[in-house]
Amino acid sequence: MAKQTLNIAMIGSGFIAKAHSNAFRQVSHFFNVPYDLNLKVICGRNQTKLEAGAAQWGWQETAMDWKAVVSRPDIDIVDIAVPNSLHAPIAIAAAQAGKIVFCEKPLATSLAEAETMAQAMRKVPTLVWFNYRRIPAVAFAKRLISEGRIGQTYHYRALYLNQSGSDPSKATTWRYRTSEAGMGAAGDLLSHSIDSALYLNGPITELTAITHNFAPGRDVDDATLLLAHFANGSIGTFEATRYGVGCRNRKTFEINGSKGMLRFDMDEFNQLEFLDVTDPPNLQAPRNLTVTGPDHPYSENFWKPAHIIGYEHTFIATLGDFLSALARKEPLQADLESAVEVQRVLDAVERSAQSRTWVKL
Amino acid sequence: MAKQTLNIAMIGSGFIAKAHSNAFRQVSHFFNVPYDLNLKVICGRNQTKLEAGAAQWGWQETAMDWKAVVSRPDIDIVDIAVPNSLHAPIAIAAAQAGKIVFCEKPLATSLAEAETMAQAMRKVPTLVWFNYRRIPAVAFAKRLISEGRIGQTYHYRALYLNQSGSDPSKATTWRYRTSEAGMGAAGDLLSHSIDSALYLNGPITELTAITHNFAPGRDVDDATLLLAHFANGSIGTFEATRYGVGCRNRKTFEINGSKGMLRFDMDEFNQLEFLDVTDPPNLQAPRNLTVTGPDHPYSENFWKPAHIIGYEHTFIATLGDFLSALARKEPLQADLESAVEVQRVLDAVERSAQSRTWVKL
Amino acid sequence: MAKQTLNIAMIGSGFIAKAHSNAFRQVSHFFNVPYDLNLKVICGRNQTKLEAGAAQWGWQETAMDWKAVVSRPDIDIVDIAVPNSLHAPIAIAAAQAGKIVFCEKPLATSLAEAETMAQAMRKVPTLVWFNYRRIPAVAFAKRLISEGRIGQTYHYRALYLNQSGSDPSKATTWRYRTSEAGMGAAGDLLSHSIDSALYLNGPITELTAITHNFAPGRDVDDATLLLAHFANGSIGTFEATRYGVGCRNRKTFEINGSKGMLRFDMDEFNQLEFLDVTDPPNLQAPRNLTVTGPDHPYSENFWKPAHIIGYEHTFIATLGDFLSALARKEPLQADLESAVEVQRVLDAVERSAQSRTWVKL
Amino acid sequence: MAKQTLNIAMIGSGFIAKAHSNAFRQVSHFFNVPYDLNLKVICGRNQTKLEAGAAQWGWQETAMDWKAVVSRPDIDIVDIAVPNSLHAPIAIAAAQAGKIVFCEKPLATSLAEAETMAQAMRKVPTLVWFNYRRIPAVAFAKRLISEGRIGQTYHYRALYLNQSGSDPSKATTWRYRTSEAGMGAAGDLLSHSIDSALYLNGPITELTAITHNFAPGRDVDDATLLLAHFANGSIGTFEATRYGVGCRNRKTFEINGSKGMLRFDMDEFNQLEFLDVTDPPNLQAPRNLTVTGPDHPYSENFWKPAHIIGYEHTFIATLGDFLSALARKEPLQADLESAVEVQRVLDAVERSAQSRTWVKL
Repeated sequence: MAKQTLNIAMIGSGFIAKAHSNAFRQVSHFFNVPYDLNLKVICGRNQTKLEAGAAQWGWQETAMDWKAVVSRPDIDIVDIAVPNSLHAPIAIAAAQAGKIVFCEKPLATSLAEAETMAQAMRKVPTLVWFNYRRIPAVAFAKRLISEGRIGQTYHYRALYLNQSGSDPSKATTWRYRTSEAGMGAAGDLLSHSIDSALYLNGPITELTAITHNFAPGRDVDDATLLLAHFANGSIGTFEATRYGVGCRNRKTFEINGSKGMLRFDMDEFNQLEFLDVTDPPNLQAPRNLTVTGPDHPYSENFWKPAHIIGYEHTFIATLGDFLSALARKEPLQADLESAVEVQRVLDAVERSAQSRTWVKL
Repeated sequence: MAKQTLNIAMIGSGFIAKAHSNAFRQVSHFFNVPYDLNLKVICGRNQTKLEAGAAQWGWQETAMDWKAVVSRPDIDIVDIAVPNSLHAPIAIAAAQAGKIVFCEKPLATSLAEAETMAQAMRKVPTLVWFNYRRIPAVAFAKRLISEGRIGQTYHYRALYLNQSGSDPSKATTWRYRTSEAGMGAAGDLLSHSIDSALYLNGPITELTAITHNFAPGRDVDDATLLLAHFANGSIGTFEATRYGVGCRNRKTFEINGSKGMLRFDMDEFNQLEFLDVTDPPNLQAPRNLTVTGPDHPYSENFWKPAHIIGYEHTFIATLGDFLSALARKEPLQADLESAVEVQRVLDAVERSAQSRTWVKL
Repeated sequence: MAKQTLNIAMIGSGFIAKAHSNAFRQVSHFFNVPYDLNLKVICGRNQTKLEAGAAQWGWQETAMDWKAVVSRPDIDIVDIAVPNSLHAPIAIAAAQAGKIVFCEKPLATSLAEAETMAQAMRKVPTLVWFNYRRIPAVAFAKRLISEGRIGQTYHYRALYLNQSGSDPSKATTWRYRTSEAGMGAAGDLLSHSIDSALYLNGPITELTAITHNFAPGRDVDDATLLLAHFANGSIGTFEATRYGVGCRNRKTFEINGSKGMLRFDMDEFNQLEFLDVTDPPNLQAPRNLTVTGPDHPYSENFWKPAHIIGYEHTFIATLGDFLSALARKEPLQADLESAVEVQRVLDAVERSAQSRTWVKL
Repeated sequence: MAKQTLNIAMIGSGFIAKAHSNAFRQVSHFFNVPYDLNLKVICGRNQTKLEAGAAQWGWQETAMDWKAVVSRPDIDIVDIAVPNSLHAPIAIAAAQAGKIVFCEKPLATSLAEAETMAQAMRKVPTLVWFNYRRIPAVAFAKRLISEGRIGQTYHYRALYLNQSGSDPSKATTWRYRTSEAGMGAAGDLLSHSIDSALYLNGPITELTAITHNFAPGRDVDDATLLLAHFANGSIGTFEATRYGVGCRNRKTFEINGSKGMLRFDMDEFNQLEFLDVTDPPNLQAPRNLTVTGPDHPYSENFWKPAHIIGYEHTFIATLGDFLSALARKEPLQADLESAVEVQRVLDAVERSAQSRTWVKL
């Protein structure tokens, strides 16, 4: 039986658009996808760059007016990979036109905007690209936690460190302007860490935060730090920075619970450390799991055990899961509501940093 | 200007055929490829499996008779991903039909066979899939050596350990039969280590070896060990085994030279350790390089620094390099002659193991 | 020329007293010590235990009344290794009797007490056992920072995690009672992290903190977390816990600065990671320094390069440095004033945690 | 009841004599020693150096004539820490005088010499300082093997790499002269690896070896490599070198067996990696054990779990075990017979390297 074809419009043509394009091309090679994906149109501002991107990834058409694109009747999915301040208008227009909406993270530049977006977007299937949930090691951490292998959580700590902002002469993109980005390290990096934390450790109930600037004259945060209480009784620390000199893309989390410990460091992308306190004391040690199978998340999809995967596979797996959920008419885990919850925490972070007080959620 | 189209025939439909198919699909997304690749036909023995593979990867046709396929006038490239004993007849037929020939490693089941193949294949462009040369860490090791950063080599040591043969009830494929595989761990694993050694450290002049069986009744080697003298005056140890219980795909090399040390362990695929003895003594230490850029091999092709790549990218990079070389009418590094040299070492290994003597090359 | 003999009275007979006794026995074997140390008397509450300790370490006498001991005219040094609440009375009495006073950390159970102690103790030479300053890796970090190798500091982060309190049935010593310990994880663990931070990164100007209890009914903190601003413009996070299940003695710090990164993890006691951003970008990586020489702190004192040292050597080095300073009539780095500063930060932590506000220092 | 006093004569005053002296001083602090040790006399060739060593470690007397010393009636133990070629005359004389004999490794400069020594020494209690057996991680590996946790061994591989000989201008001691050392890397380094292998994996039945020189004019081996068959059916590789540039004291072993894997690397002295194949496949991973307790070898002797020990403790533990065995009138594990077996393997290595053939043991 012929599969339904979904025509895709990509809004954006930068680095992330490349990662999404790759996922559209690759998903059917690794997942049993119940749809045919058609890379219909890529939309951006620079015609030369657009044509190059279209040629490279096989987009059939290019376009420069997203408003026209999102209402085209031959489009099924609108995928938004543009600066944060454009997420809302595009997503709302696409949702109002009845399209399936994919949106890069962070969802919005503010909580209010996120809530307005969500109201419009709840009518259609949605995906927010919190792709790091689909790192096999992260998904396996979730499984171990769900199985009770960590027990009651005591501590959650998370870093997301890069050095992207530490050379002001090179840090000149929209990501360094509040008007387009909304936030700096908080939106770019902390949002990922918060998403992981909510996924793995549940809601945050209260927090106190610092947002800090090292670069003179920059109006987005270079670094954001916070302490938090979680609903499950655990306490947490978070640090996100673009001045983490020496680190290029170091996202970590560590969990200490009554029955075990988990540690993840994206510098060791395919690995997860797990310590089980039910082991005999003289054999208790961090196990350095290579999460490429057997019996690990996505290990049936990609290669063989110990044949490692990388950055791009997180987008492929996110898309694969979305399409399966869509066929079953179920929402995707890490959906719109999760993205709003992340935004709610970021909002509390901003308010706490400004008021220098604890803020409840 | 329109690019020339190259029509590909894939002979084989197993795990490695999947890795090759992915490379054919992906190469133009990451490399500036001067050809259009057309996945024309996939050829195997099991029609159901073939159709599934064709659907998954977009092969236009399926076929069951490789002899008919390799002589089709509409085929430009024949890619061989079948048991070792079939490499020779297919490669020779394809070369005689004037096709570009791609062949999985090891090239042949014996040195004599390899030499016969080479004679036929020298007339056409060829690629032997020693894909691990294209791990960025390995290619960067080569660059550091070529730049003299390691100085005179003293020691080369290499492991390739997996546990694939250690459960005899599961180890029942063609890889465990001499008639189809030629060799066991030597062909499967050691061939990769030898290729890396010849690439990084130059010719081997003399060796003494053990081939060993742990599984009763198995007629290919489960493990092969050797000591070697290199032409550059260094000495080396090699160990390859399918009984490396606890290791799933652990390929390593270490080099000690007069100016530095290099260490690679495929369990840390994106990393390379480099120690520079020209550093001040109190700052001499292994640097744990993440070889994802900037200014690393293939770092312009794939993602951004610290956005890691995996197993499949070694095939993509091999293919990308081949197609560039083809357009320039140059042979690919890691070409046919390299593959014959690997076979020559494997032959010496077998002779040494049987005669229990040192064998000169 | 005969060396002056210093007669020592040890007050305490527990685990730490053993570490001190070892230092008294060993210091002259590794340091050029300008004094003869005489282990005169060990003082505690349990005669049987005292006699065993005296026999094991060669203390000449045992005693049960510390008041009598600290005023003995034949005693030169009083070393205090007892529960925190006894530090003040013993130290003050010893100082008033004109003795050299050694005191375990944390100095006191409160800032007020610490200041009272300091007033009395300033008249005599003193040593507070912040032994971890003398880990060669930590001392080498200090040297690199002082040489400007890290540049302007942006981030300082520190963990001190153990699991000592996580089994309430076993956690029944004085360390779990406010009346004797003053604080829990804050005094036991955080004090070490704060001392390292003040030593390596300078004064803290402002902080906000959580102190938290997981164990029901326990009146000391199980965990303390804080965010801080440093006088040098950097920002920091600290976490200390006795519920760090999976970690037994994991003290870490990480520093990101404009010119480099430093990372230390006491699980790798002899090692220090250093990344130098003045290296060529493609060779920038954490160097995993083994800080055992050549030209590392204390590498002339202990064994040869790569012959590692352990926990006990931090006490030996502290004592060696003290005795050299004493002979030169100079105060020891990590002296009384440093210990008061640590106490001042701990006090701010407590006030912040109680008031749930930022506290200036 | 008073303990028996054992008077010790140390023959030698170099680096190793320092490590032994430390053990004599420290053993009673960590082991329940049934004797009082008295550091009676230290004997060497350089009076100034001797007096310095005596002062530092508390030797009561110095002497320059070992022949006189070893026959002194007031001496109970003769400890030999001098160049290899002097082991035999001193040990034989001491044994003939009825002394307890301690001797540094390797026992002798040749197998014949070792056998002559052994004949004389069998009449008295003896200790050969194969101290690395007492690394807790090594002793724990032995325990796991003995308990069957590794199952049938398939592979044993061992490295001992340092760079001590790679700068010929600095490598001028007796260790670089056959007349005094007997062997180079083989005696210095490989002997330790062989001792570990015999201890952990049992007898070697057959081997083939290379001995190699990099330094012009040097008459001891700079590097020795070998392949071996063990009596238990496993196969092994060994590499020992003084040209392992980048490595300062890197002694490793790895064992793959039917039930698990063990890995030890002396760069991580306190750690042992253990993988258990009876774990569920998705939790099978190297566990990075920190072998400092609870319930690890010597963890009751030294500090608390996670309070690490170092190089010197291997000597202390060897001595502690010897004295306990002496009191029980039992031989020490790693006794004279073990040392002769090591020498027998070294002899086979030399013969194989010279004859370029396999040699049976």
